[in-house]
Amino acid sequence: ERDKYENNDVAGVVTGLAWTSVGGDILFIESILSRGKGALNITGNLGKVMKESATIALEYIKANADLFGIDPSVFENYNVHIHVPEGATPKDGPSAGIAMLTSLVSLFSQRKVKKSLAMTGEITLRGKVLPVGGIKEKILAAKRARIKEIILCEDNRKDIAEIKPEYLKGLTFHYVRDMQQVIDIAVTSRKVARPKNLVGTTGKP
Amino acid sequence: ERDKYENNDVAGVVTGLAWTSVGGDILFIESILSRGKGALNITGNLGKVMKESATIALEYIKANADLFGIDPSVFENYNVHIHVPEGATPKDGPSAGIAMLTSLVSLFSQRKVKKSLAMTGEITLRGKVLPVGGIKEKILAAKRARIKEIILCEDNRKDIAEIKPEYLKGLTFHYVRDMQQVIDIAVTSRKVARPKNLVGTTGKP
Amino acid sequence: ERDKYENNDVAGVVTGLAWTSVGGDILFIESILSRGKGALNITGNLGKVMKESATIALEYIKANADLFGIDPSVFENYNVHIHVPEGATPKDGPSAGIAMLTSLVSLFSQRKVKKSLAMTGEITLRGKVLPVGGIKEKILAAKRARIKEIILCEDNRKDIAEIKPEYLKGLTFHYVRDMQQVIDIAVTSRKVARPKNLVGTTGKP
Amino acid sequence: ERDKYENNDVAGVVTGLAWTSVGGDILFIESILSRGKGALNITGNLGKVMKESATIALEYIKANADLFGIDPSVFENYNVHIHVPEGATPKDGPSAGIAMLTSLVSLFSQRKVKKSLAMTGEITLRGKVLPVGGIKEKILAAKRARIKEIILCEDNRKDIAEIKPEYLKGLTFHYVRDMQQVIDIAVTSRKVARPKNLVGTTGKP
Amino acid sequence: ERDKYENNDVAGVVTGLAWTSVGGDILFIESILSRGKGALNITGNLGKVMKESATIALEYIKANADLFGIDPSVFENYNVHIHVPEGATPKDGPSAGIAMLTSLVSLFSQRKVKKSLAMTGEITLRGKVLPVGGIKEKILAAKRARIKEIILCEDNRKDIAEIKPEYLKGLTFHYVRDMQQVIDIAVTSRKVARPKNLVGTTGKP
Amino acid sequence: ERDKYENNDVAGVVTGLAWTSVGGDILFIESILSRGKGALNITGNLGKVMKESATIALEYIKANADLFGIDPSVFENYNVHIHVPEGATPKDGPSAGIAMLTSLVSLFSQRKVKKSLAMTGEITLRGKVLPVGGIKEKILAAKRARIKEIILCEDNRKDIAEIKPEYLKGLTFHYVRDMQQVIDIAVTSRKVARPKNLVGTTGKP
Ligand SMILES: [Ca+2]
Ligand SMILES: [Ca+2]
Ligand SMILES: [Ca+2]
Ligand SMILES: [Ca+2]
Ligand SMILES: [Ca+2]
Ligand SMILES: [Ca+2]
Ligand SMILES: [Ca+2]
Ligand SMILES: [Ca+2]
Ligand SMILES: [Ca+2]
Ligand SMILES: [Ca+2]
Ligand SMILES: [Ca+2]
Ligand SMILES: [Ca+2]
Repeated sequence: ERDKYENNDVAGVVTGLAWTSVGGDILFIESILSRGKGALNITGNLGKVMKESATIALEYIKANADLFGIDPSVFENYNVHIHVPEGATPKDGPSAGIAMLTSLVSLFSQRKVKKSLAMTGEITLRGKVLPVGGIKEKILAAKRARIKEIILCEDNRKDIAEIKPEYLKGLTFHYVRDMQQVIDIAVTSRKVARPKNLVGTTGKP
Repeated sequence: ERDKYENNDVAGVVTGLAWTSVGGDILFIESILSRGKGALNITGNLGKVMKESATIALEYIKANADLFGIDPSVFENYNVHIHVPEGATPKDGPSAGIAMLTSLVSLFSQRKVKKSLAMTGEITLRGKVLPVGGIKEKILAAKRARIKEIILCEDNRKDIAEIKPEYLKGLTFHYVRDMQQVIDIAVTSRKVARPKNLVGTTGKP
Repeated sequence: ERDKYENNDVAGVVTGLAWTSVGGDILFIESILSRGKGALNITGNLGKVMKESATIALEYIKANADLFGIDPSVFENYNVHIHVPEGATPKDGPSAGIAMLTSLVSLFSQRKVKKSLAMTGEITLRGKVLPVGGIKEKILAAKRARIKEIILCEDNRKDIAEIKPEYLKGLTFHYVRDMQQVIDIAVTSRKVARPKNLVGTTGKP
Repeated sequence: ERDKYENNDVAGVVTGLAWTSVGGDILFIESILSRGKGALNITGNLGKVMKESATIALEYIKANADLFGIDPSVFENYNVHIHVPEGATPKDGPSAGIAMLTSLVSLFSQRKVKKSLAMTGEITLRGKVLPVGGIKEKILAAKRARIKEIILCEDNRKDIAEIKPEYLKGLTFHYVRDMQQVIDIAVTSRKVARPKNLVGTTGKP
Repeated sequence: ERDKYENNDVAGVVTGLAWTSVGGDILFIESILSRGKGALNITGNLGKVMKESATIALEYIKANADLFGIDPSVFENYNVHIHVPEGATPKDGPSAGIAMLTSLVSLFSQRKVKKSLAMTGEITLRGKVLPVGGIKEKILAAKRARIKEIILCEDNRKDIAEIKPEYLKGLTFHYVRDMQQVIDIAVTSRKVARPKNLVGTTGKP
Repeated sequence: ERDKYENNDVAGVVTGLAWTSVGGDILFIESILSRGKGALNITGNLGKVMKESATIALEYIKANADLFGIDPSVFENYNVHIHVPEGATPKDGPSAGIAMLTSLVSLFSQRKVKKSLAMTGEITLRGKVLPVGGIKEKILAAKRARIKEIILCEDNRKDIAEIKPEYLKGLTFHYVRDMQQVIDIAVTSRKVARPKNLVGTTGKP
């Protein structure tokens, strides 16, 4: 039984695409902030590479806070927790990178993620998005889950070209080369319901 | 020999439902607070996924303290210890999530958990409750243990429908979709006997 | 060659009962305090579950300091070290729990443990004592070691009923349900010889 | 499918040369700075030896900040993160040493790395560059990736002499003995686009 | 080739007795102090049980500083390093306990250890000395190494009784029950050459 | 292909002698200082025993700073990094001990190590030098590497006596018993080029 897209009003929730030997599926990246000193907590039975993706996403945002309109002193006042349900399923690989990046930008800006959108792609510290595998299976799973738009790396365009057009009906694809493009597409300008008023070092939001 | 429900007046004690190859059983989630700097201690011979559930429960409460009426500065003044007896039995899996959440909300609010209630369900950082397995075995164990009410994920309703009605006699089921519903059902408004007077950062309870 | 009971005037020394494939034996729980910041050191070649028992005992006392008449600020000014000789023997399991609890209460109150007393039972964070296995072998070992009184969980009463009365001659049994009962029986009101004058945060004993 | 050189304007991005059982390839060393207390984060599925290279590069720069014109107090105010994509590929060995050194000098000085340049060589704490293996495969990969200049250890000159001249057409080789030579060749005097204004302990850039 | 006793004027050097499948040998416990915050460093390729002995020795001295005439504030101003040569030989077991205790008392008091003395015995937190194995092999090794006096647990007296008297010629045995007796025999009242002037928290020696 | 001696003007670089199943070789111990709080970093793919040698060397110097004319407050203001190239080669064993000691004394005093000198020997916390194995292979490697003088433990003199004199031509041997002798022979009174002006706690060099 596969998961369905959920129209979620909560900051930090992003839909990713997973691919295992038993086929594709969607997964959810969830992140929250609590008052603290900048610790990063990662749960969801993740392997080493997937945990590294979370670290890369957070460090990239911290190093480029200005690009994303985030007050950098916020990073010192909150702990970040990233979780990927379902907890019993081991998960690994770099392909959740752009979903983790999007989750954290949504979280720190308290802005809504675009509706009915899923994404898959590896991230790098130089801001590039890299292609990933299992595209066909992931796309089929996205359709089943009622996803409408999908972000992929430009280098994965050729993988879409190999899929029968009838399977792609109703899906819009966004091909990107860098992480700024992901955020421009995925994070809306609307605040989430009951946004947190994040406090910087100065003690002021 | 199976455990029995215990009408416990202590804050932080919640009845969960477990399922192993030798059948279902109830288990107890216990948590306590001691003065400290916010450390989380987890014991009970728990595996990685079950420890992650405890982390998720605590971080979710810290990130949403206002929802639960908890002064967030309390988190910085106390250590939390979560234990799941019996200590010799290895335990794992995400299904104790909602019981851990309930335990911690009872603990931080010093309010009583509802009597004769058990629960099983996975938690997420976005506030959803996810379905879990072994429902039939868990329900039979709950009856044997003299449980009267059970909280399950809405997606587990179909598992109950497959159980012969005679096995369900005397049991009331609560099907939930999100973690706030769990707390509304499980944590009463009555304070426990001899409630702790928790102290926030201001030095005032 | 089996150990013998030792009439020990030192705070923190408690006699437990162990059971392995080669039979029962007594063991000693030892604990000491040194000036520090609240660290817990555990030695004696202990396995994970037995180390968890030590953590549970200490955290339970910290969370319920008032029940035991202990100034909670003491916990921040001393390190606790728990050791279980003999160092070469690997040990594990939860059954030393009540002996560890008793050791720490004796230590923090600098009061004598009752003479010729041994005990075995698991502890929980909600204050309950749980039954343990190997009762027959443990009782025989206790007699050989010249123990006079034994504390057991109420649920282990049935195990004693199965032992031939002639083996029980000279032994008094105390059956308990909760940890407060253990302390009431095991820790006397007499101070140890040369008691430490423990200093709280205020700088005053 | 092999990677191509990317003319990258970002500080800290350097092209290295890798060699595995399936042939040579280029790889990218990426590094970024975020406000912090001097922590070093390393990702990219790296083995022990490659992680040690990153530590050596950073410690060498910290010990010889004056050689590179870097205000040493900067090291206490920023965390460094080094990543080597692609995240799913395990990588190890010391041959990325000079590329990591170059990456960090570019990062701390916010100066551009020379265009179309790749490099391979082990670094030491005494400032020497050591030869590495797989030279032929690495050179072929560099050509395919449109690299124009390559830095090698002087002791690898003999490995180049064994390659057919036609394979070397269009490539310029720089043979070096010490790490200062690497930086002189690889790091230009031009600032990157939008250079970070790094802040020293004095609070002034 | 076996080691010989060395008449060592350095504080903290004590001769222990080891026993392996290839026979007995003497070994040296060495310890030093350097300015620090109370860290304990242990080297010499030691196993878990032998490292625990070092911890027990140090914690026992810290908890009973008055018994040994040591200003307890010294513990907070120095790091302790315990080493057991030869570094390539793996070592384990509890029998070096009394030698480690003696080493640390000599170190903290800067007093000489008695000449031509060796010892073997397990230590406990309640101040008792426990018997150890391999006594015959250890005694033969001690003679070969020109040891004159040996400290053993009282419970090992029977092991000496089983050794042919001719092998014991020239050896004096001290049988002890508690750790205070060990120190009374082993640590002289004479200061070592160039004693360190240890500084307490008050800044005064 | 074997390494050659390098006349190195850098502080902290010392030539050691290694011995593996494929014969002897020289190796370089390198160490550097960077501003910090006294951390010790060790790289070079070293095993447990060799890492312990580095710890012993540093702790010995810290405990005996006066013997070496080093202001002890320097230890609190710098981090030490010890590296042993080549990074890809796993290395272990205690025989680099005296070379590590020499490296650190040279580093902290910023004095030159004697030219064309190599050494091998284990160190202890009581200041003794212990003999090591593989002497014949190490000596042959030292000659090939153009070493002129070699420091060995006095107990290794017999191993040299077994080597044909013709192999020893041009080599001068220094046999030592303690670590002070090593430093007297190996560390000259001349400062290195561009010596660091190390700063003590007082803020003054
Ligand atoms: Ca799923
Ligand atoms: Ca890829
Ligand atoms: Ca049970
Ligand atoms: Ca599930
Ligand atoms: Ca025994
Ligand atoms: Ca049990
Ligand atoms: Ca590639
Ligand atoms: Ca090499
Ligand atoms: Ca020996
Ligand atoms: Ca024994
Ligand atoms: Ca070599
Ligand atoms: Ca040796």
